[in-house]
Amino acid sequence: MTVLDPARSGQFRTAAQHASRRVPIAQRDELASHVLDAMRGQHYESAAAVAVLDGDRLVGLVTIERLLAAQPTAPISLLMDANPPVVASSTVQEQAAWKAVHHNEPTLAVIDEGRFAGLVPATALLEVLLTEHNEDLVRLGGFLRSASPAQMTTVEPVLRRLWHRLPWLGVGLVGALLAAGIVGNFEADLAEHVLIAFFVPGVVYLADAIGTQTEALVIRGLSLGIGVRRIVGREIATGALLGLILGGVSLLLVGSIWRDWHVALAVALSLLAAASIATVIALVLPWGISKLGKDPAFGSGPLATVTQDLLTVMIYLITASALVV
Amino acid sequence: MTVLDPARSGQFRTAAQHASRRVPIAQRDELASHVLDAMRGQHYESAAAVAVLDGDRLVGLVTIERLLAAQPTAPISLLMDANPPVVASSTVQEQAAWKAVHHNEPTLAVIDEGRFAGLVPATALLEVLLTEHNEDLVRLGGFLRSASPAQMTTVEPVLRRLWHRLPWLGVGLVGALLAAGIVGNFEADLAEHVLIAFFVPGVVYLADAIGTQTEALVIRGLSLGIGVRRIVGREIATGALLGLILGGVSLLLVGSIWRDWHVALAVALSLLAAASIATVIALVLPWGISKLGKDPAFGSGPLATVTQDLLTVMIYLITASALVV
Repeated sequence: MTVLDPARSGQFRTAAQHASRRVPIAQRDELASHVLDAMRGQHYESAAAVAVLDGDRLVGLVTIERLLAAQPTAPISLLMDANPPVVASSTVQEQAAWKAVHHNEPTLAVIDEGRFAGLVPATALLEVLLTEHNEDLVRLGGFLRSASPAQMTTVEPVLRRLWHRLPWLGVGLVGALLAAGIVGNFEADLAEHVLIAFFVPGVVYLADAIGTQTEALVIRGLSLGIGVRRIVGREIATGALLGLILGGVSLLLVGSIWRDWHVALAVALSLLAAASIATVIALVLPWGISKLGKDPAFGSGPLATVTQDLLTVMIYLITASALVV
Repeated sequence: MTVLDPARSGQFRTAAQHASRRVPIAQRDELASHVLDAMRGQHYESAAAVAVLDGDRLVGLVTIERLLAAQPTAPISLLMDANPPVVASSTVQEQAAWKAVHHNEPTLAVIDEGRFAGLVPATALLEVLLTEHNEDLVRLGGFLRSASPAQMTTVEPVLRRLWHRLPWLGVGLVGALLAAGIVGNFEADLAEHVLIAFFVPGVVYLADAIGTQTEALVIRGLSLGIGVRRIVGREIATGALLGLILGGVSLLLVGSIWRDWHVALAVALSLLAAASIATVIALVLPWGISKLGKDPAFGSGPLATVTQDLLTVMIYLITASALVV
């Protein structure tokens, strides 16, 4: 397993941290009315569902709604969902919340090495989903990680807005100067063939757009506990194919519009290369940063974009100067 | 109010669509044990909380946990939260879910013109939050709107990936060709002053980064029912200030590194203009698209980026050719 296995990296809160044992518990042969009687006077953290145990092993869940609707003499084993949504105690919190939603259950059972470890209440599941949502937008949007939830950001005063945004823009400014330095290395080629300069913004934009799509998938995947390894093959193939399609179309269009097939070929080849590389960066940067012990979130959004832009500019100018001059 | 008032546009589902009346209901003078007795044998959609009514007016909520823990003889009016999380039936669904989370409640009461209209079960709140999260990432990432939830997208095969991504990249390709056309209009200036070409990628990148930050706020705000009008003033001020700061710093850096204060001034002025305009586009484009009766989501992500990039290239080259040549 890599460090990116979210359940094992320290950066992700797990289902166990939200599980409560202050929930109703019953044995499988108890009757519905007995279980309901026994619940009275108890102080539960969540009474949304009754955990049915056999020793310390979970055998099913009964929602409070189903328990109330049942015949008083019905045994709990006939009422319970014998295949309830269950997660391991190490499951990443958002993955756990996702599982509950897809079972249409307001609660989730947590199992630790086969033993019942508690139920995650609906309030905890709701908070997890809201927090993760805010975090993802903060990441992709290029805000300082300490930014308050986006709801706050939406109405916060101008000076705090500046504070949350300037750090990443500062990184962007350094990137912009580096890009100028890269272009400067090809000054002579550009002076001779100005046409090369025409396609710098477009090639950079397209490589960026492909990288952003991959980032959105990686961020979503990481939150849900889907490791980069599971998507890396398909993503790289998709990136290369997108580069091939966009490169092919732009070869024909640039060539026939601007009547310079050398520059057209340079645009096409660099789109192919840049699209493939943008995908790899969007996949690898979060991974590399987590290897350094930092939050992989820093590898998405602005940092990935700056890195991609610099590489794309370099690839395009190297290709163009090789083909044209 | 503008069309962007999410509660009034047809594009947003409201709290009323998730409210259920199949929930336990009690009068304020009932005793805890009576309420619990009366709940047996009933088929509720959610029994997470008891709605306490006075006629058809909601006066409080009692969670099932609190009801179970109470003395049997306690009157329900002493147990209830007399100030529970309540939303109007027209409240946008995600805003409603957000309110429940911040009250740390697994349920939410819906009021229609003063009358109790039902409770939103936790399962509905959970589903709302997950759906909105996927939608936001699909928008920002530049996928076709019909893309399945991102979880699916993460593992779907290569051909379906292409299908969900190519449409927006096609728009990007058209934008890239238009950008080349814009640069082409300044061919003579560029040939004479190649230095101008050095800063095209950097200026475009920085304007983009500022626009993306605003987009993340607008998307979050729209989901939570915060209209563009409430943030427009602060956002525009923030965008202009960011442009001023970045412009000032880059004036000094470009001027002292490349020793051409005309080009440095062109970079600075166009950063100021482009940053301000990028903010306005990120605010106005979703609004304009909703005016046309389309989903405002189309105004975020790729379309906003392409529009910004083209305007930024134009602003920079006009400024540079005016100041330098």
